[in-house]
Amino acid sequence: MLFHVQITVRVPPEADMEKIRALSAEEVEQAKALQRAGKWLHVWRIAGKWANISIFNVDSTDELHGILSSLPLFPYMDIEVTALCRHPASIDDPQQAP
Amino acid sequence: MLFHVQITVRVPPEADMEKIRALSAEEVEQAKALQRAGKWLHVWRIAGKWANISIFNVDSTDELHGILSSLPLFPYMDIEVTALCRHPASIDDPQQAP
Amino acid sequence: MLFHVQITVRVPPEADMEKIRALSAEEVEQAKALQRAGKWLHVWRIAGKWANISIFNVDSTDELHGILSSLPLFPYMDIEVTALCRHPASIDDPQQAP
Amino acid sequence: MLFHVQITVRVPPEADMEKIRALSAEEVEQAKALQRAGKWLHVWRIAGKWANISIFNVDSTDELHGILSSLPLFPYMDIEVTALCRHPASIDDPQQAP
Amino acid sequence: MLFHVQITVRVPPEADMEKIRALSAEEVEQAKALQRAGKWLHVWRIAGKWANISIFNVDSTDELHGILSSLPLFPYMDIEVTALCRHPASIDDPQQAP
Amino acid sequence: MLFHVQITVRVPPEADMEKIRALSAEEVEQAKALQRAGKWLHVWRIAGKWANISIFNVDSTDELHGILSSLPLFPYMDIEVTALCRHPASIDDPQQAP
Amino acid sequence: MLFHVQITVRVPPEADMEKIRALSAEEVEQAKALQRAGKWLHVWRIAGKWANISIFNVDSTDELHGILSSLPLFPYMDIEVTALCRHPASIDDPQQAP
Amino acid sequence: MLFHVQITVRVPPEADMEKIRALSAEEVEQAKALQRAGKWLHVWRIAGKWANISIFNVDSTDELHGILSSLPLFPYMDIEVTALCRHPASIDDPQQAP
Amino acid sequence: MLFHVQITVRVPPEADMEKIRALSAEEVEQAKALQRAGKWLHVWRIAGKWANISIFNVDSTDELHGILSSLPLFPYMDIEVTALCRHPASIDDPQQAP
Amino acid sequence: MLFHVQITVRVPPEADMEKIRALSAEEVEQAKALQRAGKWLHVWRIAGKWANISIFNVDSTDELHGILSSLPLFPYMDIEVTALCRHPASIDDPQQAP
Repeated sequence: MLFHVQITVRVPPEADMEKIRALSAEEVEQAKALQRAGKWLHVWRIAGKWANISIFNVDSTDELHGILSSLPLFPYMDIEVTALCRHPASIDDPQQAP
Repeated sequence: MLFHVQITVRVPPEADMEKIRALSAEEVEQAKALQRAGKWLHVWRIAGKWANISIFNVDSTDELHGILSSLPLFPYMDIEVTALCRHPASIDDPQQAP
Repeated sequence: MLFHVQITVRVPPEADMEKIRALSAEEVEQAKALQRAGKWLHVWRIAGKWANISIFNVDSTDELHGILSSLPLFPYMDIEVTALCRHPASIDDPQQAP
Repeated sequence: MLFHVQITVRVPPEADMEKIRALSAEEVEQAKALQRAGKWLHVWRIAGKWANISIFNVDSTDELHGILSSLPLFPYMDIEVTALCRHPASIDDPQQAP
Repeated sequence: MLFHVQITVRVPPEADMEKIRALSAEEVEQAKALQRAGKWLHVWRIAGKWANISIFNVDSTDELHGILSSLPLFPYMDIEVTALCRHPASIDDPQQAP
Repeated sequence: MLFHVQITVRVPPEADMEKIRALSAEEVEQAKALQRAGKWLHVWRIAGKWANISIFNVDSTDELHGILSSLPLFPYMDIEVTALCRHPASIDDPQQAP
Repeated sequence: MLFHVQITVRVPPEADMEKIRALSAEEVEQAKALQRAGKWLHVWRIAGKWANISIFNVDSTDELHGILSSLPLFPYMDIEVTALCRHPASIDDPQQAP
Repeated sequence: MLFHVQITVRVPPEADMEKIRALSAEEVEQAKALQRAGKWLHVWRIAGKWANISIFNVDSTDELHGILSSLPLFPYMDIEVTALCRHPASIDDPQQAP
Repeated sequence: MLFHVQITVRVPPEADMEKIRALSAEEVEQAKALQRAGKWLHVWRIAGKWANISIFNVDSTDELHGILSSLPLFPYMDIEVTALCRHPASIDDPQQAP
Repeated sequence: MLFHVQITVRVPPEADMEKIRALSAEEVEQAKALQRAGKWLHVWRIAGKWANISIFNVDSTDELHGILSSLPLFPYMDIEVTALCRHPASIDDPQQAP
């Protein structure tokens, strides 16, 4: 089941940037692991912003929330979740992760 | 080059629905052809809305506008375009269409 | 899996109200059947508006979209879907429909 | 009488998180007590956010405000209250808490 | 129990104004009856708009919705309902309609 | 002459709450005096928020601004002012403060 | 007493433009008369829009509403009213219309 | 003097498209003439929309309004005007049209 | 050439108020000088807010920006600039500052 | 390929202004270099704001993001990116940077 997630990271300019960079590095590893596990299907950077658009493939909304709320930078994030479903014009094979 | 496009179709309830259905069918074929050509990478339905989120892989903004403005239902569409780029945490092979 | 759905019905004042009332009656029956099937868990009227807040219990986002897009008044609806999950403070028995 | 309440908790990232966790734990107990008392009918987590959607069953707006304003994390909350009433399509027994 | 209600009337310029004036006259009588019954406590015109701000004193949200949805111009109305309660600084006698 | 005023108090969570409580107590007394003087006609709490809706009866906009800007918590306030006037459906006696 | 009024005229493109032009001409005369009477102090066109910003000098909000609601194009207008008062930095002579 | 102007054309789908195309062709010629006259410095299409972003170089706001309000499709336009001025980092020769 | 400028001053409550008052006093003198020079035509306080609406009469957008950006409280200001031009219904003598 | 970028710089008033001025000076040099390289085609100041509107001519969205995210004041910036393409009414020579 697919969810479109737009994540905007808002770090106050006077924050401890060393701590932020450490959290950010940790997050990159977490994201790569989730991609390899087929949960985090796509992640793209929005040009000009500290923000990304991602597509998650999860079994439940609880699983989605578990993933998002355990991201190291979660306290700094504005997150918008949109439930997706199969489009009649899509030529993706329904069995394959699109 | 990737663009995230959110398309919401707003057809006034009193419109000629036969004409709309014909345009819509035409659009599905156009979308499938563009997907086969690798231009329209992904198209997902937004649950609960006559709207979709798509990822386009084009060589220029002019090409993107050409595709979108020639969609049969274009006069009924609200379209938001977001420029995407590669995310440092993405494990997608840069050479492969993500 | 639970989804919070806010539906606002926008019927242009000059619409054919007889047709609208027929669609509306059809919709009430459809809603009652879905409630009896355990899919449409709750439906409440928003005071002062032709709008409702509902909780759906479905197996997938595709199922949710199927239900919503087949509602007779769907062409007149603004629909906002919010994915819900279990709250740590909830005393609802996870196995029971909350 | 039912009220739909959406609560978003906004804790500044540099806040004293130990204090916040203590307030949060206190709040969970308060919420469970109110659920057992039949006042706080439903509480669901919004996927991806430190936010919840709840349904309260109270005798007056004063009682509702009393409950909400005494929540330990109230100073950190954005709260939207929507008055609900019985929907003509609801099959809930009017005498039973829906 | 008090509710603050802001009603904005949006009549398309090309509407049948004779019909609208008749509905409007009917509504004035309905409003006066509800004021005499103590249900519609206050009604004020917003300067510069076909809109009003009203305070209703009702026993339930169902009663409030019943009043509002039966107003003759209801199909032309945008209605915002806000639940009010007693303010600690108010010198109004709680037993008296404020 | 009547003005509708919505006041939302936004106190940063890390503010000196003792100072805030003192200002708040001072404000309650000021509000009561203005109510007794017939200037502050109504004040209601918005359920779920540190906010109120008030109706002021003043002789000029300058007088209104003088009252609002001298409220002890004024630096923490978002204030929206709406000019009201007599509604044709109101049964209030024009000479009496409504 | 001064009020800032922003008026945006929204005429549907398919409206009877001859009727609109007649109403518009009537409105210009009404506006000139009110300016000569010292009620309509200033009227400026917003560059690029069928909209204006005006300053009215009236004795009450009722008078303001009377003027605005009797403008021939009132049914086509979005009107925002802002209550103004004397600014401490203004060198205008309080007795003179500013 | 430079003004940034964003123009969005909103033509109702059921409009007489032949008339619209004629107006649109007329507008293209008008735009080209203004570009040759150095008034309309730049015009770019916004990808995905019937909208453009333009830079005008005019001697006064009255001149700007004269140009915009005489565009054939003006009745169908949402126009946002932003006043621009020289940026300290610009290497454009102040005497040259930038 | 006229510009409508709405200035809202947002000073964080924990700011050094003595410094702010000094800047504010400085600004009042600057404003009075600009009014005497005929540049700052009108300045009105918005009732209920630390905000003002002003009309500036300048020769260019650069001059306008120079004036606004040199105001002592500029770092605390949200500023909205609207380009104005002569209204066909205005009886102001075009040669006189309106 | 052209992108329209609106950059608003939001520096908290209590920030270390010396550090900000240093970053700002560095940014001016960076902007001048990019203009000379033909990447940053135009940069204009928005009158009344610490904000600019720029037109970038880049080969990819990745290049655009690289430029923007490496601006010294990037952490203080709200950035809106709009993809532009050639307008049918433009008389600019397609081969020339417009």
